[in-house]
Amino acid sequence: MTNLTTNTIEHNIRNNMLLKHGSPQFIDKICKNSHTFQVPKNHIFFLREQQAEHFYIVLHGWVKLFRESIDGNQAIIDVLTSGHIFGEGALFENMIFPYSAEAVESMQLIRLPLLSLKNEIETNPKMSLAMLKSISKHKNQKNMELEHRTLQNAPQRIGCFLLKLLPKPESKEAQDIQLPYDKTLVSSRLGMQPETFSRALSKLKKEVNLEVKGGSITVTNVEKLTLFCCSACSTIFPCGDHE
Amino acid sequence: MTNLTTNTIEHNIRNNMLLKHGSPQFIDKICKNSHTFQVPKNHIFFLREQQAEHFYIVLHGWVKLFRESIDGNQAIIDVLTSGHIFGEGALFENMIFPYSAEAVESMQLIRLPLLSLKNEIETNPKMSLAMLKSISKHKNQKNMELEHRTLQNAPQRIGCFLLKLLPKPESKEAQDIQLPYDKTLVSSRLGMQPETFSRALSKLKKEVNLEVKGGSITVTNVEKLTLFCCSACSTIFPCGDHE
Repeated sequence: MTNLTTNTIEHNIRNNMLLKHGSPQFIDKICKNSHTFQVPKNHIFFLREQQAEHFYIVLHGWVKLFRESIDGNQAIIDVLTSGHIFGEGALFENMIFPYSAEAVESMQLIRLPLLSLKNEIETNPKMSLAMLKSISKHKNQKNMELEHRTLQNAPQRIGCFLLKLLPKPESKEAQDIQLPYDKTLVSSRLGMQPETFSRALSKLKKEVNLEVKGGSITVTNVEKLTLFCCSACSTIFPCGDHE
Repeated sequence: MTNLTTNTIEHNIRNNMLLKHGSPQFIDKICKNSHTFQVPKNHIFFLREQQAEHFYIVLHGWVKLFRESIDGNQAIIDVLTSGHIFGEGALFENMIFPYSAEAVESMQLIRLPLLSLKNEIETNPKMSLAMLKSISKHKNQKNMELEHRTLQNAPQRIGCFLLKLLPKPESKEAQDIQLPYDKTLVSSRLGMQPETFSRALSKLKKEVNLEVKGGSITVTNVEKLTLFCCSACSTIFPCGDHE
């Protein structure tokens, strides 16, 4: 391994929201047993119900976590990018992955040994508390998604997704957004059929004066968009849910 | 406190899936500082964003956990009964309740000091691991709910709710079910408008030959119901999700 690779691994582990809580011995050991690698678009990292040996930190690109129904449809669990970890969900499922993971585009990642993380959580109270906070936050995000599926209509759900992409969440100025991945995946992420997504985006465009050009969107009136989406939500933007 | 009350508290704490992992000192202390009490229907235990001092074990009856949108609609987060705890969600939210809780009917409960649980989780690794498993399980259930909202239609979601109520999940025999709470709450729990619920239940009745009399439902063909619901799900019944 080159020094550059070693530095990348160490930097990303020490700056990870969860892993940084590990003991010096753990960080030292896990750095030595981790590797950076690249994958092309559509690479399958693992399938649901496979035995888990590794988890991953995304360095560059997007990964989708999903499950497939018996009749062959996909439900997206999450779409994650740089700084996020995935695969660690197997820790409390007897080391079996509870979802499948596929590269949305070509990606750079770090692969880390899951057993080391398991041991650290079991022996270092600081790490198990950090893990508790992390899972608890994810659970709350899931509750929020379920709330949105119940109370928000399709245009409001798209609007909420856009609000979280605003480069300056606190500002009321007009702002440009680039959709992070293609519209088909955005619609799946929001649990919509592509046709529903198209219709809902057109409606949203008229309601709050968006300018849409392919994947580029200008939010001309942030306040109008916020009012439109957050009236059907229990919290008002900026809600912290976008962090 | 009578001996009977003391015994009830100790029995329920020692048999609780989470609390039983506490140290003898913790169990002893929390038993002494907990109380049984009764509330009438519609009693509000706490509102979202209130400071949390207690959490609760349900002894009898049903409680709904919910959030309200700014325009006044409710999203149900969970509906829980005997043996379940609630209010502990504030532990990782700076001791602020992340949802409101209301009695669906008259209820009997134990009220316990939340700070004691917080201290135990922070100092007893066995307890923090038990909490990790518990939250992880809840998170997976939320993922499953989101999957169902995406892939199952309304009749399938009602069917899935009924499957989880079967007294003999492994048996293919015809079985009787009693809805645990009124149909309006069942429809909210499933994220449906009452009209959608009624239409979907009628459709399900025809598809899989249910006999419905008010809140009493006979599933005449368990296999047909399973096939109908689970074809649009990533797991097949009995899936463990009903435990």
